[in-house]
Amino acid sequence: MPYSTPMLDICLLGTGGTQPLANRWLTSLLVRYQGHSVLVDCGEGTQIAAQKAGLSLKPVDKILITHLHADHTSGLPGLLLSMGNMGKTTPLSIIGPLGTERVVESLRCIAPGLPYEIRVSELEEPEMTIPFLDVDIFAFRVQHGIPCYGYSFSLARCGKFSPQRARELNIPLEYWRLLQAGETLEHDGVTLTPEMVLGADRRGIKVTYCTDTRPCQRIIKAAAQSDLFICEGMYGDDAMLPKALENRHMLFSEAAQLAHDAGDVRELWLTHFSPSLPNPRAFLHIAQAIFPNSVVPRDGWKKEIVFPE
Amino acid sequence: MPYSTPMLDICLLGTGGTQPLANRWLTSLLVRYQGHSVLVDCGEGTQIAAQKAGLSLKPVDKILITHLHADHTSGLPGLLLSMGNMGKTTPLSIIGPLGTERVVESLRCIAPGLPYEIRVSELEEPEMTIPFLDVDIFAFRVQHGIPCYGYSFSLARCGKFSPQRARELNIPLEYWRLLQAGETLEHDGVTLTPEMVLGADRRGIKVTYCTDTRPCQRIIKAAAQSDLFICEGMYGDDAMLPKALENRHMLFSEAAQLAHDAGDVRELWLTHFSPSLPNPRAFLHIAQAIFPNSVVPRDGWKKEIVFPE
Repeated sequence: MPYSTPMLDICLLGTGGTQPLANRWLTSLLVRYQGHSVLVDCGEGTQIAAQKAGLSLKPVDKILITHLHADHTSGLPGLLLSMGNMGKTTPLSIIGPLGTERVVESLRCIAPGLPYEIRVSELEEPEMTIPFLDVDIFAFRVQHGIPCYGYSFSLARCGKFSPQRARELNIPLEYWRLLQAGETLEHDGVTLTPEMVLGADRRGIKVTYCTDTRPCQRIIKAAAQSDLFICEGMYGDDAMLPKALENRHMLFSEAAQLAHDAGDVRELWLTHFSPSLPNPRAFLHIAQAIFPNSVVPRDGWKKEIVFPE
Repeated sequence: MPYSTPMLDICLLGTGGTQPLANRWLTSLLVRYQGHSVLVDCGEGTQIAAQKAGLSLKPVDKILITHLHADHTSGLPGLLLSMGNMGKTTPLSIIGPLGTERVVESLRCIAPGLPYEIRVSELEEPEMTIPFLDVDIFAFRVQHGIPCYGYSFSLARCGKFSPQRARELNIPLEYWRLLQAGETLEHDGVTLTPEMVLGADRRGIKVTYCTDTRPCQRIIKAAAQSDLFICEGMYGDDAMLPKALENRHMLFSEAAQLAHDAGDVRELWLTHFSPSLPNPRAFLHIAQAIFPNSVVPRDGWKKEIVFPE
């Protein structure tokens, strides 16, 4: 279990679904960690939303696509070109459901000749893990009209270092930090492992993002223990259930129920609001009645998520 | 020469080139006439820029594409979907250079199943005329790295009606308005034509839009007698000439020289500013020294262009 700088920096660049509005960017999430970034979804205007939020997309190594609807992909060609103009030369990985390669290739008809390599990977299994430095990205398939994935970002945290135990084992002081950082060492023919001086694993950091789906068991499992659960709430009013069923989207109350059922979720941010919902805050109380720490964020809201204590 | 409601309503939705900025939409032009609209170019965010300008793109019958670079086309899939969501059912014509059909088809990988028909036409000749109600749209090929067209919108104006001449010819009063409106009539076995009662054609209305090009003779010809000439000025400073030559763009001074040379141009709006040009107004004096009525417009500037008097 590796040592980690204990912080995920996240920014919800937009909160809209279906189409960008003059006062609402399309939903996408930027996750920053140790100078690298992952972008989840890229609808029309996402690159502008990032500028508005004062964040550069040049350090983006990976773009995760939830699904291939336009409000989650239409910003790709513009962003790919802008990243080239920003001087990006390192490879970019684009990961999404089956069909992602075809869509990226098609959209690139207006973004040819980039100065960096694009590597597309398609998610074939219902649950997959994507490495990103020492963050585990867990992709989980949800229930929309077309294949769609949610993503959890988890940063594990090792147990607490016990100086008393290290002293008992006569481990020299110069090895303490290395063991604490997760390294295994040899000393005088003896193997020293982190487990010898560390307590039980502690709660790490977890951010879960999930949009364009009906409620399902896999979301409950993935969202468990999330410090921040960002979840679609296309419609605020429970009376919109028929529409939500028809379009395979969720109500605020359904998103809140997922946050409640997942267990040990610290905070729920609703997102992906329908253009027909000009004031999502008017329905927030419905979510809060089920999951009290429900929030209607604004475009560009940021949060630094750190290990507790 | 048909009778016309003498007004073209134009809105320059954005003024940027290359990529959208947080404070500058990509260049595109909306031309409205008698409840119908033509959009010229559709980069990422154009549909949002229209919302910001308070204009609906639902009445758009035609989208004219100058060329197939992303900053002029990347907004297409999002706009096509939004037009469907707005309830459009009438056909949409998309017109652009050779290759437009392939690009529209490729971009539609994320905009399938629209509730209206799309008809793509490709411009094959260096100069072509596109009908739009009684407006003549003149497409003229310019000089960019790839095939690129400018467009002029012209509304002709018939000569002044002469009641004296109509009386001399004993034309009954009830026919006067019809002849004035350009109709040819039969009365008592005699053919009555508008020419019999109208003076020489008068200056009509003309708007010319041209972006992504080096200066060339065809622009001078097309821009002649424009009430409004909207022309790219990618760079303000004359020192940027090597860059302009390299990227096949223009300086403010070159755009102003075109406006000057075209003859009888009333007003020049510069547009398509490089992202490296945060304050185009700082260079406006360079254009004004050559063509005094040069303007650096803001995104969303509107103008109603009417027949004089």
